[in-house]
Amino acid sequence: MDAPVKLEVLATDGAARCGRLLTPHGAVPTPAFMPVGTQAAVKAMAPGELWDIGYRMVLANAYHLAVRPGPALIRDLGGIAAFMGWRGAVLTDSGGFQAMSLAALNRIREEGIRFRSHLDGAPMLLTPESALDIQQMLGCDIMMALDECTPYPVQPADARRSLELTARWAERSLRARTSHSQALFGIVQGSVYADLRAASARQITSLGFDGFATGGLSVGEPKALMLEMAALSASFLPADKPRYLMGVGTPEDLLAAIAMGYDMFDCVLPTRNARNGCAFTSAGRISIKHSRHAADSRPLDERCGCRTCASYSRSYLRHLFRAGEILAARALTEHNLYFYASLLRRAQAAIASGTYGQLCRSLASGVAQELDETE
Amino acid sequence: MDAPVKLEVLATDGAARCGRLLTPHGAVPTPAFMPVGTQAAVKAMAPGELWDIGYRMVLANAYHLAVRPGPALIRDLGGIAAFMGWRGAVLTDSGGFQAMSLAALNRIREEGIRFRSHLDGAPMLLTPESALDIQQMLGCDIMMALDECTPYPVQPADARRSLELTARWAERSLRARTSHSQALFGIVQGSVYADLRAASARQITSLGFDGFATGGLSVGEPKALMLEMAALSASFLPADKPRYLMGVGTPEDLLAAIAMGYDMFDCVLPTRNARNGCAFTSAGRISIKHSRHAADSRPLDERCGCRTCASYSRSYLRHLFRAGEILAARALTEHNLYFYASLLRRAQAAIASGTYGQLCRSLASGVAQELDETE
Repeated sequence: MDAPVKLEVLATDGAARCGRLLTPHGAVPTPAFMPVGTQAAVKAMAPGELWDIGYRMVLANAYHLAVRPGPALIRDLGGIAAFMGWRGAVLTDSGGFQAMSLAALNRIREEGIRFRSHLDGAPMLLTPESALDIQQMLGCDIMMALDECTPYPVQPADARRSLELTARWAERSLRARTSHSQALFGIVQGSVYADLRAASARQITSLGFDGFATGGLSVGEPKALMLEMAALSASFLPADKPRYLMGVGTPEDLLAAIAMGYDMFDCVLPTRNARNGCAFTSAGRISIKHSRHAADSRPLDERCGCRTCASYSRSYLRHLFRAGEILAARALTEHNLYFYASLLRRAQAAIASGTYGQLCRSLASGVAQELDETE
Repeated sequence: MDAPVKLEVLATDGAARCGRLLTPHGAVPTPAFMPVGTQAAVKAMAPGELWDIGYRMVLANAYHLAVRPGPALIRDLGGIAAFMGWRGAVLTDSGGFQAMSLAALNRIREEGIRFRSHLDGAPMLLTPESALDIQQMLGCDIMMALDECTPYPVQPADARRSLELTARWAERSLRARTSHSQALFGIVQGSVYADLRAASARQITSLGFDGFATGGLSVGEPKALMLEMAALSASFLPADKPRYLMGVGTPEDLLAAIAMGYDMFDCVLPTRNARNGCAFTSAGRISIKHSRHAADSRPLDERCGCRTCASYSRSYLRHLFRAGEILAARALTEHNLYFYASLLRRAQAAIASGTYGQLCRSLASGVAQELDETE
């Protein structure tokens, strides 16, 4: 049987690689950033706009969609892509991260995670089997095995117990799987401990997953440690399957992680920052709230080709943001997602031409700067 | 000197007429509905989307823009249309209506209206002269003379005092005008009293305005009285100048007012209702919150040609609305504005072909119904 998703590596440059991830909903150029659409919508964006910017895969959250509107409804309406009116592929996170981020509401046991719904307090049990069942009903292209996203900081003994639970859940996930038209990825944990990362990676990659993710990073640990653990984990992931670094990150994080050989990323940063008035530009990050933009007729980024930069001045965007207009969230989100899409396209092209190191050096001085830190 | 705006009447059908309003920012087909963009943005919409739906003129509010971001800033950025990235025409209301709707914050005197800014409490004085000055700085195509929007209910003696103040302010507005590249409209008041409406209309139309508006309606009076006063006021407005019925209304109100000979309308209904989950359809109004839409794969209106109806099911829209997603406001607003634009286009075509009465009868049974009144 053919694998439901398949990575075609077209070129490598050091550990970095570019190619195409073939999914039931079409090909996704890699390395790929996936905009986050937790509730089956990328906040402030229409699906057609994501497509026009160049995105071919988005992320949604199985836990959130299980609570509302329910997986059976989405199945009956043709699966999550059809439900959203989205032509591309969808990856769903299982809800393991919500087990940590909504921690007051749940208890983790061998069987799974006992939640109370964040909406109405109704008791729910999320197990490796039910997480699979939900994702199979959602009809996403890529399902994630239920894991425990180990919190930070954590003692080594607790981190080991956690990754072993994740490993047992991974095996149960594979046994529970009935759909072979949807891919299933396993998740490496191990917190910030090199030996535990190695142990988890060996365990998870010994199982028959279609791809592998590095989880449990960007949860509060220092940046250097995040990058070290991401690199270490990547070194254990097989070259012939897609590698996904979950929840990362800033433009500079993406550039670093691509160099480690990761193919897929997701992060709320471009969309959430946009709604908070922060824009990514080729010269660094700007806060549209800042008074120095009040009468500035220039676009957010004079080197950007997005619709926002073609249509609106910084002055107008600042006015929209201060006035609480929805158009502010729309325009900044579209700009930031365009910025990320452009970054990934440049990375793909640089890898193909063997110039990825040069690209990273040329961008390093610009993208990470905070230009409007003081208001 | 040519008038800054000119109405070309192309056809009449009874009192109804269709044509084109020629403005400094292009021709606007009439009868025209103007989406409300109080703060220089039509809530949830991008200017290019309004254009694509067929709108050629929007409304903004001089008072709101005077408070934030300030008229000098907008002037320095090229005027309100350029500031918004809008290719069409803009009409600004003066702030007279805010004198009523933000009444706790102001006092009306002969000189003008003493406000406290609704944002920071700063004292402001809006006079006929300063309202003109602000609108001239904004660079809108059509300015409105400052009026007192008489509240409802009101005693006849108070309504008379109010309309006479409005008349004196109208004369001061014309004397204060320095820009003759922007049109200036006068406003008829008189509450619900036929003799006062007639007196106000005679006073205002005797002055050298470029167009005339009927104000002070849709402020709480019974619907039949609103229509009676709108018709009476219209009968006094000269045929060779544009007639604008302010703040009206529902689709059925627009059909009735077009039959009276009005050319221009504005109302928050299509945009505000959209954000509250209410959609206009050819069969009547629906509330997308209603549980009967939960698993409905049909569009809002199977006879609608808008992007929302081409892209999203009622089920998905209901999910978006309940999840608080910005896309719900976007999709419903675009649909409702498309519905209004289509209605106006059909009215224009029917007037041109002498079938306006038939159009009104054919639509009457559908559009006014509330289909989901109980939840």
